[in-house]
Amino acid sequence: MQATQYIGNKTFKVLEKEIEAPASGEVRIKVAYVGVCGTDVHIYHGMMDKRVDIPETIGHEMSGVIDAIGDGVTDFSVGEKVVVRPLDDRKVKPSDKGFNHICEELKFIGIDSPGAMQQYWNVPAFTLHKLKENTDLKLAALIEPLSVAAHDVRLSGLVAGETAVVLGGGPIGLLVALVAKEVGAQVIISEVNEKRVSKAKALGLDAVNPINIDLVEYVKEKTDGRRADVVFEVAGVQPALDVMCEVAGIRGRIVMVAIHGQKKEVDLFKFFWKELKLIGARVYEKEDYEKAITLITENQLPFEDMITDVQPLSNIQQVFKNIDNNPDGLKVLMDCQL
Amino acid sequence: MQATQYIGNKTFKVLEKEIEAPASGEVRIKVAYVGVCGTDVHIYHGMMDKRVDIPETIGHEMSGVIDAIGDGVTDFSVGEKVVVRPLDDRKVKPSDKGFNHICEELKFIGIDSPGAMQQYWNVPAFTLHKLKENTDLKLAALIEPLSVAAHDVRLSGLVAGETAVVLGGGPIGLLVALVAKEVGAQVIISEVNEKRVSKAKALGLDAVNPINIDLVEYVKEKTDGRRADVVFEVAGVQPALDVMCEVAGIRGRIVMVAIHGQKKEVDLFKFFWKELKLIGARVYEKEDYEKAITLITENQLPFEDMITDVQPLSNIQQVFKNIDNNPDGLKVLMDCQL
Repeated sequence: MQATQYIGNKTFKVLEKEIEAPASGEVRIKVAYVGVCGTDVHIYHGMMDKRVDIPETIGHEMSGVIDAIGDGVTDFSVGEKVVVRPLDDRKVKPSDKGFNHICEELKFIGIDSPGAMQQYWNVPAFTLHKLKENTDLKLAALIEPLSVAAHDVRLSGLVAGETAVVLGGGPIGLLVALVAKEVGAQVIISEVNEKRVSKAKALGLDAVNPINIDLVEYVKEKTDGRRADVVFEVAGVQPALDVMCEVAGIRGRIVMVAIHGQKKEVDLFKFFWKELKLIGARVYEKEDYEKAITLITENQLPFEDMITDVQPLSNIQQVFKNIDNNPDGLKVLMDCQL
Repeated sequence: MQATQYIGNKTFKVLEKEIEAPASGEVRIKVAYVGVCGTDVHIYHGMMDKRVDIPETIGHEMSGVIDAIGDGVTDFSVGEKVVVRPLDDRKVKPSDKGFNHICEELKFIGIDSPGAMQQYWNVPAFTLHKLKENTDLKLAALIEPLSVAAHDVRLSGLVAGETAVVLGGGPIGLLVALVAKEVGAQVIISEVNEKRVSKAKALGLDAVNPINIDLVEYVKEKTDGRRADVVFEVAGVQPALDVMCEVAGIRGRIVMVAIHGQKKEVDLFKFFWKELKLIGARVYEKEDYEKAITLITENQLPFEDMITDVQPLSNIQQVFKNIDNNPDGLKVLMDCQL
């Protein structure tokens, strides 16, 4: 089979490997599509060389079909379409309080152990979610990032009739916006890249560029002065941190989706004054995967338009180069079936 | 009657004034005791000269007895013991979403309008809470700050069996700790002033000095590695902001009680990683006052020991000087009945 490996220094290797039998408790998946996550790009940039066991096969946004079943696996059959929830929580402790998805000893499959950017992938059966037979496997590769969005929206407590502002219109920001709109909220995206603003509009979303307009005034107009009930910080930059406290109304909830590698300045006075809430949100829980699978199965949202490129797995080096050179693109998939 | 006025430049004036009849909708209170709040000290230091209409009578932590009733006031009688919830929310708007206690046009009585540091005080009847006949009016002057603590603990969602860490052992920190303990939580206070550490211990609380011990390790030991379920940030300094994200366990809730006048550095990565929540908390709602009144009426907590000085109102200048010179003191009351 064809497999890929990140070997450091912005380099991927494409290699031929033996297909391995699944170990006890595992299944072998014939991978259909793998999406490239921002984290994968981070790895490519060498930012996670301390964590990744180089050379390593990465990738965790995927869809596929069960190809072989290991000993002791009873709930799955060869030929079933599946996605993997890439969280290995086998070292969970009582001090994790039942929040297994973010347990202290969590291993993220595709970062801390081999990932999906290969034609066949052996994974523990407990990571699997079944898909319906008629599910489009291309769209199904969006289930992992869509679960992130479902988790963010669920933790925000957003309900119909409320207004959500999404700071950042990249893939996760747009998925958050789509899920928030599906809840029945008014959704406004703030994004500085004009092409991404246009893309968001093409997806049927209200999107503005805060360089050209006063975002706070825009949101106040759209809400009769209430401002945002929920803000999703998906941009990861200081101006977003500054505006999130302004654009949130009284008792507004701000969901911290972005990963801030360094300490950042926050207007804690506004948290006190308006009784704002900041809610950290990381990955997803089982129910978020189920929600995402339902949304992909129903296919009522413009998921197809989120996919801006599909390349064969063997093009992996070019795929990552292209992502670096094209800040306007959204989700890029690799087809592992060729 | 005797009244006091803050006249700017760290100066109070004591003056004789005519007792005024209460206006329509108001009652006149014969003030018993007024506590000095950190905000009053802030005013004394000139930090709020832009907001306070100098010369002004300040003060909002009080107890007293109804002395006269204005037109249209039906629910109160002369002689009843009362406290004032000093929030004037008459300019509430729909965009305040029903959170009247922090509405955009809120006027805080005793800062934005005349306060309680005088022998007789006219206030709108809607600000009153009745006390039982046998209530100790000295302790009742603690109801306002105790309501702040009750609000903080309520918004934290703290329940019996959880562990709360209180960063800062001043008057509000200690009241938060007492209310948290009353809920049935394990409570640990972190305070850098040794005299306040001793005071907290004398109040029956677990208190440590983070200069002498590793607070995070101490809390981990006390919780079998879970760390804190709830953290109250009452210190208002950068080291407290740094440690709050460390000492909080998975899905920990951090209540922002302190007022940070400037933007501060926050470890947002920890919010993401452990799915922490930051909860802004300001003043109190009706039910927090009722809770505080119940606690003061039952008098099962060491409230008496929180009062470290009682002075006649005429000593106001000396009272504020003493507070500046004695960082170890807790709650200072002025007796307005003399």
